[in-house]
Amino acid sequence: MEAFENVLSTAPGRLMVNEKAAVPCIDACVAAAFACTACADACLAESQLDMLRHCVRLDMQCADICAVTARVLARAFDGEKAVFRAQVEACALACAACATECERHSHEHCARCAEACRKCETKCRDLLRTMGAAARA
Amino acid sequence: MEAFENVLSTAPGRLMVNEKAAVPCIDACVAAAFACTACADACLAESQLDMLRHCVRLDMQCADICAVTARVLARAFDGEKAVFRAQVEACALACAACATECERHSHEHCARCAEACRKCETKCRDLLRTMGAAARA
Amino acid sequence: MEAFENVLSTAPGRLMVNEKAAVPCIDACVAAAFACTACADACLAESQLDMLRHCVRLDMQCADICAVTARVLARAFDGEKAVFRAQVEACALACAACATECERHSHEHCARCAEACRKCETKCRDLLRTMGAAARA
Amino acid sequence: MEAFENVLSTAPGRLMVNEKAAVPCIDACVAAAFACTACADACLAESQLDMLRHCVRLDMQCADICAVTARVLARAFDGEKAVFRAQVEACALACAACATECERHSHEHCARCAEACRKCETKCRDLLRTMGAAARA
Repeated sequence: MEAFENVLSTAPGRLMVNEKAAVPCIDACVAAAFACTACADACLAESQLDMLRHCVRLDMQCADICAVTARVLARAFDGEKAVFRAQVEACALACAACATECERHSHEHCARCAEACRKCETKCRDLLRTMGAAARA
Repeated sequence: MEAFENVLSTAPGRLMVNEKAAVPCIDACVAAAFACTACADACLAESQLDMLRHCVRLDMQCADICAVTARVLARAFDGEKAVFRAQVEACALACAACATECERHSHEHCARCAEACRKCETKCRDLLRTMGAAARA
Repeated sequence: MEAFENVLSTAPGRLMVNEKAAVPCIDACVAAAFACTACADACLAESQLDMLRHCVRLDMQCADICAVTARVLARAFDGEKAVFRAQVEACALACAACATECERHSHEHCARCAEACRKCETKCRDLLRTMGAAARA
Repeated sequence: MEAFENVLSTAPGRLMVNEKAAVPCIDACVAAAFACTACADACLAESQLDMLRHCVRLDMQCADICAVTARVLARAFDGEKAVFRAQVEACALACAACATECERHSHEHCARCAEACRKCETKCRDLLRTMGAAARA
């Protein structure tokens, strides 16, 4: 998202994380947080809610974790690498769990949520790779 | 943001809010939440931090309120109109307060944050107008 | 909650809100946010989930709004009175809506959640009264 | 916190986490989230803010991560063990980083914040130990 890049690039000093990897990750976290929140709400309107209990829960968990991960990454000018890494790892896992569940349902909101979660998982993994590399350097 | 519209439009049932006004408002809330979080962090890296105390605080307050408002609106299929309205009103006020402060500083991150907040304030006011209209109907 | 009072009382400067009213309100917001989050999750495990759709949604909405209101109030040394007031008003309304719904169900988690929400609504209204008084002074 | 235990114990089904370890961890997360939010705000009112830049940032990061960890744990009736574990690990690391920084400053709000963070770090580690045990069982 252009808006994210714009503000990050105006800050003095150096980012703790690789901006090229962090910006798409923030973008994907925000999109997944929204998709999960909206999917949980849409599930609660489905006639066969009974089958969607686990989906609603994983949606809520994933929405919370994605939202906080985006915030943590938006504050990336300083901090502990280990904390960033652990939070992004938690986010990748939450996205994988939510996507796996959403992929089991035929609702379109589930399909779109799964897609947003898979993308976020990928971007988290991409960012983790750059963190690992930076840490070893 | 296309992503937001996509998921909202796949839900069964009717939205409590006007989708044409809610989607740009969610988009603006998310962008303002990010801009405020990043602006607070960038302020903390500026040499003249002393003059930016109030700015950091209003950034943090606005980031929190915008983020929760986006979530509340993403869950718009059901609910109390009065709660939506009060939360969107709080968001418009938080954005106005933050923008007014950011506009007093020459840092580019402040300028971009002010812009994101003014846009969010406008989209909140637009949405409030559709809510008022719906309520009177 | 003792922990909340302890930190607030160590800050330099003056609070924007009446500490005697703000501390119980923060405490009640935190308790209600937790009760709502846990009640939504417990509802999703109930056999008659169908009747609890509206309850889960209002729980999620109320949890989000209470949590952010507690944060906003914890940052009370400076800011715009109008923003505090609007956010606390949104919180009182969200609590009232959630409590009214939870009171319709016989589950013990709903009863406890309703109780936490009613208490939070009351503490928000108490705080709003002190804000109104301060604003008029 | 009594309030937390009360609601958790009324849910149908079994918790994914050890309730005896989860309840004190939720309590400690909530207290640390508040202490960090209030400490950041109090730092912003200190005359020697220049020395507290890193402290404000770690406070904000820790507040966000503790708050989301409490929410994730409050929704513990179902879910992926790996996600809980990763989020609680991120929380322990964020608390350790924040406490280490706060311990370097003589302000009373920093001392109390450090104490809340150390307690939360301990409770997270206690909970992680029960999760590891359960996973091996």
